[in-house]
Amino acid sequence: MKAITVTPRTPNSLRLQDVPVPVPGKREVLLRVLRIGICGTDRDIISGFYGEAPAGSDYLILGHESLCRIEKLGPGVRGLKIGDLVVPTVRRSCPENCVSCRNHQSDMCYTGHYFEHGIKGLNGFAAEFAKSDSSYIVKMPESLSELGVLLEPLTIVEKGLLQTYLLQKSRLIWKPERALVLGAGPVGILATALLRLRGLEVDAVATRSKDSVKATLVESTGASYINSKEMPFSSLDYKYDFVFELTGNASVAVSAQDLIRVNGIVCYLGIYREDQETQNVGKVFTELVLGNKLHFGSVNANITYFQSGAKDLVRIQKKWPKLLSSIITRKGGPDDPQKIYNPESEEEIKSIVEFSGA
Amino acid sequence: MKAITVTPRTPNSLRLQDVPVPVPGKREVLLRVLRIGICGTDRDIISGFYGEAPAGSDYLILGHESLCRIEKLGPGVRGLKIGDLVVPTVRRSCPENCVSCRNHQSDMCYTGHYFEHGIKGLNGFAAEFAKSDSSYIVKMPESLSELGVLLEPLTIVEKGLLQTYLLQKSRLIWKPERALVLGAGPVGILATALLRLRGLEVDAVATRSKDSVKATLVESTGASYINSKEMPFSSLDYKYDFVFELTGNASVAVSAQDLIRVNGIVCYLGIYREDQETQNVGKVFTELVLGNKLHFGSVNANITYFQSGAKDLVRIQKKWPKLLSSIITRKGGPDDPQKIYNPESEEEIKSIVEFSGA
Repeated sequence: MKAITVTPRTPNSLRLQDVPVPVPGKREVLLRVLRIGICGTDRDIISGFYGEAPAGSDYLILGHESLCRIEKLGPGVRGLKIGDLVVPTVRRSCPENCVSCRNHQSDMCYTGHYFEHGIKGLNGFAAEFAKSDSSYIVKMPESLSELGVLLEPLTIVEKGLLQTYLLQKSRLIWKPERALVLGAGPVGILATALLRLRGLEVDAVATRSKDSVKATLVESTGASYINSKEMPFSSLDYKYDFVFELTGNASVAVSAQDLIRVNGIVCYLGIYREDQETQNVGKVFTELVLGNKLHFGSVNANITYFQSGAKDLVRIQKKWPKLLSSIITRKGGPDDPQKIYNPESEEEIKSIVEFSGA
Repeated sequence: MKAITVTPRTPNSLRLQDVPVPVPGKREVLLRVLRIGICGTDRDIISGFYGEAPAGSDYLILGHESLCRIEKLGPGVRGLKIGDLVVPTVRRSCPENCVSCRNHQSDMCYTGHYFEHGIKGLNGFAAEFAKSDSSYIVKMPESLSELGVLLEPLTIVEKGLLQTYLLQKSRLIWKPERALVLGAGPVGILATALLRLRGLEVDAVATRSKDSVKATLVESTGASYINSKEMPFSSLDYKYDFVFELTGNASVAVSAQDLIRVNGIVCYLGIYREDQETQNVGKVFTELVLGNKLHFGSVNANITYFQSGAKDLVRIQKKWPKLLSSIITRKGGPDDPQKIYNPESEEEIKSIVEFSGA
């Protein structure tokens, strides 16, 4: 079968490769891939910064954002049938089966030895077929047979947002009104939609102009778009109940600390390049204390966030029918991976690869 | 009556002053003060950095750590009687009566306009008598008629610890084993005892030598004492489930970020002097994200923490009978405030002032 692969840690080894169709084990399913989404993690793997092939293999099939149909069931699989529209989650248990992993919460793995399809030690979904442990499969409604590929990026903010509410409600009486989203890539736009669904006033900040596609999509949800080049953070005249930091820019992450009000919370979701910066750390920590503030990081998402995300994707599609399809700015086949994996324009938001099943 | 007062924001205006005995209102109590404890906040007020007199007054009575007996009840007070051994909490509602304040959680006040006895807009307890709203009074068992003055400093870590557990249990399966306490002043020693009561392995770090009183008290609870001059943070060979940062030193606060393991939590409790420091912020935020880590600040304590603290004080007293009395290294009367408010030796931990009721 056709698969998009890399030799991990070898820059620019991206290629289309012919590899064997995987054979599902007793509790596994064989998936026919409809489409996969491309994100920054894929590009980091292609650049050689990241990625790990399965044990004994010299290549890694890319792709962790996917939409598939069940092609074949292992003999021990229950609750799924051939033809079901599904999304597999990304992370799998560590060999030690730590207390998080053994409870299907590998997103909170304690050992760091978890596996990730398409990223770390397991092949991904950028191929005609893929296999997955059947207990990590989320069924999708047929209404999402085109756009369900956006579930995985949505789960990142599903986790961040649910954890934000759990954390805040565990420690205080919290009635958030205003949220700030830093970054308006695919995840930022989905975060904005999710927060608007929850009834919050939302400002989203990014570097594109006010008439860009990103700005237009943000504003279509009733949120306000702020161009950071026109309005620096220091000029924002109020403080937010919470902030989602999605830019992956360390200087922006530092600024985020100042943008929350008393009892506020910042959820960090980016991966930040090394960045030496001089900060008044005395002020940062004093404000953390005197304001009862909270900063937390969140990575990946377990199956519960995929399940709630599937419902939210339906709600978003119903409320703003053009939003999700507008996030997908380019589609292509797998035959020229260099072309589809490289952004073509400033207005590009999310590129997807369609496989023969689509 | 005798009261220890300052003119707020006037350095070194500390004095013994004769002031009128307060008159309790309908739902207030008049308290006969037995003893008060002295802490860093008192010294910051004396230095003129901090503090605010009650409206219309040109002096502030000091003292927020206290142990008292009920002397007189306002006509609308229920559930208390004359002679009860009690501790009043410190913070009171903001005039706006925000959602936290109106639920007796002024420690999480949203407006910042809260009042604090002995600190901000309300007289404190460093006097022969004081008055308080009766709904902020915690009854103490007679077994704590000497040592109950340590309740208020304990409540700071009661809040920090309860919030730590609430936060962690709201977001993951958490079975902490190892905790680190940074700082071994009165609050650090009480934090160590509290964590040991909860069955955790505890390391406490401070600058005093291994044969100091502080080190001895820490080790009497079964915790390990680390002299930071002999063993820098970078040499600590494992990561902790959580860290209590109590030093109020901004550089130590920065180091605390590195000392927690994956899924770990740092609770910051200090007030930090301005301190410009160069940090690899990219690394800090990436580790926050990839490790699902959490940093939060905590200030003050509401009445629920005083109530749980009173129970823990009894447990600490039972388990380590010499610990609490050893924390109180000096006692004096109110007549020479300069003497009792200034530390006399490196070995001093907690000084208290005894009033005529004691």
